[in-house]
Amino acid sequence: MIIDCHGHYTTVPKALRDFRQQQIDRAAEPSAASLPPPRIGDDEIRQSLEGAQLKSQRERGVDLTIFSPIAGLMGHHIGTRAVSEHWSRVSNDVIHRVCTLYPEKFVGVCQLPQSPGVRPDNCIPELERCVRELGFIGCNLNPDPSGGYWTDPPLTDKWWYPLYEKIVSLDVPAMVHVSSSCNPNFHHTGAHYINGDTTAFMQFLTSDLFRDFPTLKFVIPHGGGAVPFHWGRYEGLAQDMKRPPLGELLLKNVFFDTCVYHQPGIELLLKVVPADNILFASEIYGAVKGVNPRTGFNYDDTKRYIDSIDWLSDGDREKIFHGNVRRVYGRFSASRAARREGAAA
Amino acid sequence: MIIDCHGHYTTVPKALRDFRQQQIDRAAEPSAASLPPPRIGDDEIRQSLEGAQLKSQRERGVDLTIFSPIAGLMGHHIGTRAVSEHWSRVSNDVIHRVCTLYPEKFVGVCQLPQSPGVRPDNCIPELERCVRELGFIGCNLNPDPSGGYWTDPPLTDKWWYPLYEKIVSLDVPAMVHVSSSCNPNFHHTGAHYINGDTTAFMQFLTSDLFRDFPTLKFVIPHGGGAVPFHWGRYEGLAQDMKRPPLGELLLKNVFFDTCVYHQPGIELLLKVVPADNILFASEIYGAVKGVNPRTGFNYDDTKRYIDSIDWLSDGDREKIFHGNVRRVYGRFSASRAARREGAAA
Repeated sequence: MIIDCHGHYTTVPKALRDFRQQQIDRAAEPSAASLPPPRIGDDEIRQSLEGAQLKSQRERGVDLTIFSPIAGLMGHHIGTRAVSEHWSRVSNDVIHRVCTLYPEKFVGVCQLPQSPGVRPDNCIPELERCVRELGFIGCNLNPDPSGGYWTDPPLTDKWWYPLYEKIVSLDVPAMVHVSSSCNPNFHHTGAHYINGDTTAFMQFLTSDLFRDFPTLKFVIPHGGGAVPFHWGRYEGLAQDMKRPPLGELLLKNVFFDTCVYHQPGIELLLKVVPADNILFASEIYGAVKGVNPRTGFNYDDTKRYIDSIDWLSDGDREKIFHGNVRRVYGRFSASRAARREGAAA
Repeated sequence: MIIDCHGHYTTVPKALRDFRQQQIDRAAEPSAASLPPPRIGDDEIRQSLEGAQLKSQRERGVDLTIFSPIAGLMGHHIGTRAVSEHWSRVSNDVIHRVCTLYPEKFVGVCQLPQSPGVRPDNCIPELERCVRELGFIGCNLNPDPSGGYWTDPPLTDKWWYPLYEKIVSLDVPAMVHVSSSCNPNFHHTGAHYINGDTTAFMQFLTSDLFRDFPTLKFVIPHGGGAVPFHWGRYEGLAQDMKRPPLGELLLKNVFFDTCVYHQPGIELLLKVVPADNILFASEIYGAVKGVNPRTGFNYDDTKRYIDSIDWLSDGDREKIFHGNVRRVYGRFSASRAARREGAAA
């Protein structure tokens, strides 16, 4: 079985983007937090997926995608906490509808109603709703709700602890995922995303977060940002700081996806990071949509890169393609069983 | 000949650090901009280098280091523009003394008196002094003088153009190098440095800066941050944006050093980035000081990684170890000849 742990619903029907635009246009008004949700028919949802994510799943041999709202559209820096809460509910509800229409093909991960300067405790009700009521199995956690100015505390600060307590008690992992950047220094998918990944890893490396939360699990997307390329730097930094080796310090809690869009990058990732810590993903349709003219295949067709590595053992391949997902996403198997039952009923 | 293009004087005599501390302690007072420079004897300078950089050069077979002030101590976010100008002069003068004492072993690169919110034009006099009077061959340019809040315009903004005009007319390259981070989200050497590199590359990719300045040259240190690991992502992003291929778009102007501290990272770098765009460097003594227990050698002994790659051609090896430096640092050869003459006189 092949599970892609990182897909966003970037092909949403126009009505959802229109709704968000209306919210943004009146972000300062109280009405932004109570706009009526967009009306989207089941057929529109089907249509938005059939020629896109579902087609790619079929063509690439992916059985199921762990699916979440558009990362770049989370826009936590826009509007108030109430705006963010309303937008998150609307956004997550649409993901739930996708997962209900295609219970064999998608399982949900939620966006959280973060807002700069607002204690992340405000995310607890929406997380709980998504997990307990909608059957979601994880959340995306933005390490920089300010959208590129990094004005909130690091992920390792006690500021985040109440949310982590809930995350741990629900047995869901958090994917560390920034949203769009309102800082002109950072291109969103080319700089801000990757910087967010690198930054989070280094925050974890310098903290005792996982002593406080031994079962807290983070997936760092985009292959871990710069981390695998600079693995020796991180090993050396940890050593100079008299921290334990990375394996002991972080690798029971931190996992990397495979959203790295060329063969040498994927090979490096698989060489330096233990297979137990790598989860297959391609983030379709995400940062890069084109076909690599040298290979004739999509840059983001990451399964091909992994398939072509002949030194990868069958056991490691299975871990990367599905085994690790079941371990990291504690609710994966139960959620699937429940949804199958629901679909059959 | 082996030239290391990226070394900082991190082993400076204590008097220089004390001077800077005094400046920081009174950063808000006008006197901070006119504190008497520290008194440092030639012997103190010799001593600070003999058992450190010079020893490493001998042991590792490095002939010459392109040497600049401590990056983390530039601290452009501290104090006023006047404080930054005074500190830069003092700092650069000490580098000049190193290069005068060891003209065969070190050649200078300057720090610039950047200050957040201040037009970079203020850096022109110090750059000119360092190049014309002190014989320096490059400068370090901080893409984020705010120290982690990224409040100044991107490197591709016209804000920087007067400085670029001077840089181009002096025929010196700029190494894109942040300083310390005052943002608790970013560990300086583990996140801020690497993010600065990645961010700058993406700024270049999305702009027409090199159409405006066809001979402007940047060295992106630390192996280019996350860029080589995500080379396919950057190729694909450029393609999706209908930009020219990376080679055409950037590689006449943008170069990467080899400060990547493990074998797989260096191999990836050399696989994906053309040899014409790679400059040997180790950044001693920099981010990582320890010995890798698995290899028995220093993590930052980057020459070993390159030496052990058997598929690298002799021609490419020579480019990386010294050929490219002569091309990128336009004043390298003249400066060396002049300093040899000076030493012989």
